[in-house]
Amino acid sequence: MPEIIKPRTLSGFRDFLPETMMLREWLIDTAKQVYRTFGFAPIDTPALEYFEILGGKGSEETDRQMYQFRDHGDRHVGMRFDLTVPLARYCAQHINELGTPFKRYHVATVWRGERAQAGRYREFMQCDFDTIGTTSINSDIETALVIHDLMRALGFDRFKIRVNNRKVLNGFLAKHGLTDSSVAVLRAIDKLDKIGKLLVADEIKQTTTASDAQVEQILTLVDNDESNRNTIEKLKPLVADNELGEQGVHELSQLIAATEALGIHEDKLAIDVSIARGLDYYTGTIFETTLLDLPSIGSVCSGGRYDNLAELFTKQQLPGIGASLGLDRLLAAMETLEMVQSIRSPAQVLVALFDQAYLHDYLRLAAKLRAAGIFTEVYPEAKKIGQQLKYADRKGYACAIVAGADEFAQRKIQIKHLVTGEQFQVPYETDAAEIVTKLRELMD
Amino acid sequence: MPEIIKPRTLSGFRDFLPETMMLREWLIDTAKQVYRTFGFAPIDTPALEYFEILGGKGSEETDRQMYQFRDHGDRHVGMRFDLTVPLARYCAQHINELGTPFKRYHVATVWRGERAQAGRYREFMQCDFDTIGTTSINSDIETALVIHDLMRALGFDRFKIRVNNRKVLNGFLAKHGLTDSSVAVLRAIDKLDKIGKLLVADEIKQTTTASDAQVEQILTLVDNDESNRNTIEKLKPLVADNELGEQGVHELSQLIAATEALGIHEDKLAIDVSIARGLDYYTGTIFETTLLDLPSIGSVCSGGRYDNLAELFTKQQLPGIGASLGLDRLLAAMETLEMVQSIRSPAQVLVALFDQAYLHDYLRLAAKLRAAGIFTEVYPEAKKIGQQLKYADRKGYACAIVAGADEFAQRKIQIKHLVTGEQFQVPYETDAAEIVTKLRELMD
Repeated sequence: MPEIIKPRTLSGFRDFLPETMMLREWLIDTAKQVYRTFGFAPIDTPALEYFEILGGKGSEETDRQMYQFRDHGDRHVGMRFDLTVPLARYCAQHINELGTPFKRYHVATVWRGERAQAGRYREFMQCDFDTIGTTSINSDIETALVIHDLMRALGFDRFKIRVNNRKVLNGFLAKHGLTDSSVAVLRAIDKLDKIGKLLVADEIKQTTTASDAQVEQILTLVDNDESNRNTIEKLKPLVADNELGEQGVHELSQLIAATEALGIHEDKLAIDVSIARGLDYYTGTIFETTLLDLPSIGSVCSGGRYDNLAELFTKQQLPGIGASLGLDRLLAAMETLEMVQSIRSPAQVLVALFDQAYLHDYLRLAAKLRAAGIFTEVYPEAKKIGQQLKYADRKGYACAIVAGADEFAQRKIQIKHLVTGEQFQVPYETDAAEIVTKLRELMD
Repeated sequence: MPEIIKPRTLSGFRDFLPETMMLREWLIDTAKQVYRTFGFAPIDTPALEYFEILGGKGSEETDRQMYQFRDHGDRHVGMRFDLTVPLARYCAQHINELGTPFKRYHVATVWRGERAQAGRYREFMQCDFDTIGTTSINSDIETALVIHDLMRALGFDRFKIRVNNRKVLNGFLAKHGLTDSSVAVLRAIDKLDKIGKLLVADEIKQTTTASDAQVEQILTLVDNDESNRNTIEKLKPLVADNELGEQGVHELSQLIAATEALGIHEDKLAIDVSIARGLDYYTGTIFETTLLDLPSIGSVCSGGRYDNLAELFTKQQLPGIGASLGLDRLLAAMETLEMVQSIRSPAQVLVALFDQAYLHDYLRLAAKLRAAGIFTEVYPEAKKIGQQLKYADRKGYACAIVAGADEFAQRKIQIKHLVTGEQFQVPYETDAAEIVTKLRELMD
């Protein structure tokens, strides 16, 4: 007898128990469904790629975090750490076959050997959608609509999509000859929520050549009005005479006009010129989405527009826009906000195995319920009914069906509602129609 | 400008283009749905585990094929090569919390550094379901029902589930003092289809101590009758007086009685005493499923009963039964049998962007169609209509909607059926009801 190996997982990696996993599957399926309603189609790419592909961008942090090794053929390989680099490689390789605009979603696992800490995992899922090969503002608008529909489909009502356009601040800085200071300004603005206007102003003054008047204007720029239209009117003079800045404001106003026309109110989608989302990737529209009841968990859906997706892998310029759903954050939020009760059962009804002699009857009844769309499990052993009902309860089933020799002789069965404890006697005819009706009523 | 990195994937790994991926998603979703109708719930486990966990069983072939390396913390880790070892580790760790019977499905990627060859991949998906913690024959019966419902839900009508029970042959061999020859006998029987009875008999005679009469009986044992009941009657005397063998035949007869009672005919589920499914893992019921129109691709859904899932990780005995769906084989079969036409579109309708001035109208119309359950994409650029229709056609959409200034002024739009080329003029009222009706009619 060999020694027992201690069962354990690696630090930063997770087992998902059924309750959590059902919620994850529901969330992912809902997201996929929304993506498809807008014509996005799924793709997948390998978990393992050549290291030179994944490490192509050469960020030190990325390279350090990437799981990498030499494979059986002594190739230097890495495990994907995001879905963006694989998308870039994929588009460079297949775009002629795919055609543009290419609208894809990709739900897949990524790995990062980060220092393990609370809420940080070394293995997690990303859930991205992107539109590649068009610079049309209509795709920016559609991205906002997808995020909006997604949040609604997931059951959220109190959320805010914050939208900005990188061209606004970049145009403003260019207009004032401060383009070289843009990283420093962005870094300072990013702290607005945490440290407040005065300290942000101090930081900009210390780290850039901006004059006091310019710093004042920057603070005006990032100060949002309750009304999207007022914000746009305020931005116009600040970027006047700079083409890039004017374009940014125009794009924001087109996006706001369209979402307004579709009845999305500004309490759900608002311009926020203070959001930046990283320093160098996005070039136009950017999005963040916060839950009004849980702002502290950060953005649950973010993204934006970029000019050139795949420059590492092709000379073909591929502009695009997309966003990524924060699965782990949304799941945590749904748990905290208690939105998850009804999503945690694989099925709805347990047929108790009261007497093995009637196995075929139980199986036939279950098959009929399934054919009527009611997910039904038959307990596999003729254990005590109390134990079987406890099992049904633990799995979150709404009802249990109990029947033995007497019931089958009289063509009737017992339905027990597991939440209220009520019991009902229902006739069991060949088509099980009355049972289906009663179960539907009880599960409502 | 850095040099372009050649976009490519590793040998044995695949990119999935949208058409293929939609089919995969449909297949996986259908399988999950069927598993759930029987009360199976999803789980997930990490892709990376301690090497000592995955390599615990110590098969040389497995260890050689496993992707393994030292992680950032110098731990020896491996990428999972199947879902069975992780399930064993998971059950050993969590079974007290999960309770039994524990019914789970697991759809996840596994990796094997095999020599790359046609139809063999180094990365593929497994799609398993298992019932852990019960020895009840009812779970064997349920496994057969799940496989049957699965095949039907996937659209297959001409398939055969072959069922056997390892106890039958093992009991027979024990009865004749040939237990030590069981591996040799299984190896020979496994070649029955390829080399025929005579050569199988020769091989058994050469590799075991079986007498000519015993070899004759073995060949009778593995020779199946058209009728399941006849097969069972034939088996009874062959295993008579051996407890294990009699138990095996009894289990087969219980399984056949139940599936017959549910109306599953023997052309769909038949006893086949010649199937073995590996030499040492399964201990009772075993299953294989072949497509009658494509027998050469092998079994598309296989599994069986085992006595002790997790002996490497716990002293608790965990019997179970399960099966695994062969995703890649099924997908290949569906392509070959041309069963896939309608599954390859992310959406159904394209709203052409005829005139950017009417963007809000297009967006509103699309939102109304989506609200009515019709998946609808709006083209993002005001390109030539021909180009937009070509795009819709390539994505497999059924219809396109075209409307410009005239149409909106007269409150009517054009619906183009992309398959027949027919065009229809339909009134566009605020609720878009007539458009929805016409689209539904055309998409039927």
